[in-house]
Amino acid sequence: MAQKKQDIGKVSLVLHKKLRGKVSIVPKMLVKNKSDLALVYTPGVAAVSSYLATHKDKLGEYTMAGNTVAVISDGSAVLGLGNIGPEGALPVMEGKAMLFKALAGIDAFPIVLATQDTEEIIATVKNIAPVFGGINLEDIAAPRCFEIERRLQAELSIPVLHDDQHGTALVVLAGLINAFKVTKKNPKKARIVIAGAGAAGTAIASLLMLFGVGDIIMIDSKGVLHRKRTDLTGEKLMLVKKTNKKNITGGLAEALAGADVFIGVSKGNTVTAAHVASMAKNAIVFALANPTPEIMPDIAKRAGAMVVATGRSDFANQINNSLGFPGIFRGALDHQVRQITDVMLIKAAKNLAALVKKPTTEYIVPNTFDKAVVSAVAKAIR
Amino acid sequence: MAQKKQDIGKVSLVLHKKLRGKVSIVPKMLVKNKSDLALVYTPGVAAVSSYLATHKDKLGEYTMAGNTVAVISDGSAVLGLGNIGPEGALPVMEGKAMLFKALAGIDAFPIVLATQDTEEIIATVKNIAPVFGGINLEDIAAPRCFEIERRLQAELSIPVLHDDQHGTALVVLAGLINAFKVTKKNPKKARIVIAGAGAAGTAIASLLMLFGVGDIIMIDSKGVLHRKRTDLTGEKLMLVKKTNKKNITGGLAEALAGADVFIGVSKGNTVTAAHVASMAKNAIVFALANPTPEIMPDIAKRAGAMVVATGRSDFANQINNSLGFPGIFRGALDHQVRQITDVMLIKAAKNLAALVKKPTTEYIVPNTFDKAVVSAVAKAIR
Repeated sequence: MAQKKQDIGKVSLVLHKKLRGKVSIVPKMLVKNKSDLALVYTPGVAAVSSYLATHKDKLGEYTMAGNTVAVISDGSAVLGLGNIGPEGALPVMEGKAMLFKALAGIDAFPIVLATQDTEEIIATVKNIAPVFGGINLEDIAAPRCFEIERRLQAELSIPVLHDDQHGTALVVLAGLINAFKVTKKNPKKARIVIAGAGAAGTAIASLLMLFGVGDIIMIDSKGVLHRKRTDLTGEKLMLVKKTNKKNITGGLAEALAGADVFIGVSKGNTVTAAHVASMAKNAIVFALANPTPEIMPDIAKRAGAMVVATGRSDFANQINNSLGFPGIFRGALDHQVRQITDVMLIKAAKNLAALVKKPTTEYIVPNTFDKAVVSAVAKAIR
Repeated sequence: MAQKKQDIGKVSLVLHKKLRGKVSIVPKMLVKNKSDLALVYTPGVAAVSSYLATHKDKLGEYTMAGNTVAVISDGSAVLGLGNIGPEGALPVMEGKAMLFKALAGIDAFPIVLATQDTEEIIATVKNIAPVFGGINLEDIAAPRCFEIERRLQAELSIPVLHDDQHGTALVVLAGLINAFKVTKKNPKKARIVIAGAGAAGTAIASLLMLFGVGDIIMIDSKGVLHRKRTDLTGEKLMLVKKTNKKNITGGLAEALAGADVFIGVSKGNTVTAAHVASMAKNAIVFALANPTPEIMPDIAKRAGAMVVATGRSDFANQINNSLGFPGIFRGALDHQVRQITDVMLIKAAKNLAALVKKPTTEYIVPNTFDKAVVSAVAKAIR
């Protein structure tokens, strides 16, 4: 497996050097003579400019703004690689732009930022917003990501979504809905352990609480979030008030004993067979750390897990954001949604889960390339 | 003519509504299954991200940054329409992005800004710069444009060009070189009147002085720039020290009497037949105000002008920026030029002029769609 991963990396490097960029900007019509030029540029375009200057609400109908999304990152939390800056982030954002077009017909442009300052990021995104119909924030570290998303949502009139939070939460919930079916567990009684209390973990917890689950126990790098901890601030302080009903203390071992569900959005190889073996019968394990899961699927299965999912394409049950963001923005653009709410995301998760007619232990989410995925999600975002 | 212009505007509006944006962002390769996904996105892309995080100088070889230019406007001086804001500016910037691709194979993305504050514009452009290989500033009002360009050139390591200044100056000089030939005038003795002392007029004057012309007289909305004026600041103060050798005072009439060349980058219908008639024999008139020239070509000709050029595609001798910016940026990207200098622009103007083997009164610049144009300009930018 390690060898295979290394090979994918090598092939990917060669491919990237050959492509020199994964997306291209192309004219929608040929411009081959002065008559064409006179229509798309001066003097003809002056009529369109004058019209839009006084009919700003028509911008989406006459320009690219109606179908264009910015994929914006400050490079501070890229994949599992951490704070690798804008240069490291760009290939990921380009990849995402490809998927926006390939899966949802959306024109997406990658913007990687030369700043990691919260206020500068907010000001910059606001300043470039007029050309976009939506803002996809990506790979921005917590807790900065919360403030940035909240402020931009409040101050812009187009939808703003930090995909690492809400896109992830949507897809996790969709998978979980089917995993509950397969394991015949009742969500309302389920005890769920979430390892990782950053962007993804926080959003997953919020969405699961609204969906209605028994109890959630959050774990960060210092252990279980409980009410005796004095080091919690911001989102974590909010979370600890609503989770961990029995106020369990300790770490992963204490949290997982008897738990129904493990959701890992933390670090690779942090969960052991013994941890899984201590969970409730027919346990559900979502080991989503990328590229190395918290526990490898075969180990988790042998230790007693009934349904195992990862973020990887080379195992069954790939919980991947590509199942979410294309449809979320397709819906938001088509239905002119200004705020993407958790209620919409829960509906989208249900729609996504329902695409799998007969869920099994090996099949809880549809394939990213299933044509029905985008419209199932999009119809919920309205 | 007025009727025809109105028609072009109407047709253009219909076309824009049909296209809903003139450029589209497309993947450079098909992504149709999970194997493709694994190469262009996770997990394969992680190898590229890691590599670029530590080899920032390779960004242009592995990502779109090497061939992508931002076309950035604050909407403060759009065409002849003035300060119509980002919404009004967007169709123009999209048109320009089309031309970048159609003429020079460059991926150009339009950014229209929600701010017209100099410092905010500078900060915003710097923050989004990592994804771009060059910055084309466009339709930003003077004097703000000077400071913005100067600062960005100093603070970024990629080429920054305010096209209304330097692109215009390059194409004007190219046309003028051939107009001098046709009229058998000696540039070194020519007296040149430039109406309009904003972005374009200032850059034209600077480039012509470096090229070497007899004398230049600049005119702004208050009349001739001369050394008794006490209202001049910034660029105008610099200009007045180097131009108007005889320190002429007055307005257009005083400036044009006996002049060899008129270059108008000001307002439509401001030059009369009498003005042109007062110029030297075989006068050259570049009436570049758009869409209405300072004087219509037929009137100028009847009044004695030998060579007349405008910015319009429906008359002979169209002095259009499309002859300049595609080649300027093609050259800058291909030769990794960090600063586009006036020396390069003069060389480019000479190359451009040389494409017209036998200049005549009706043919002083090549056609924008002549395939030789971009490479002629590009080879000078190195």
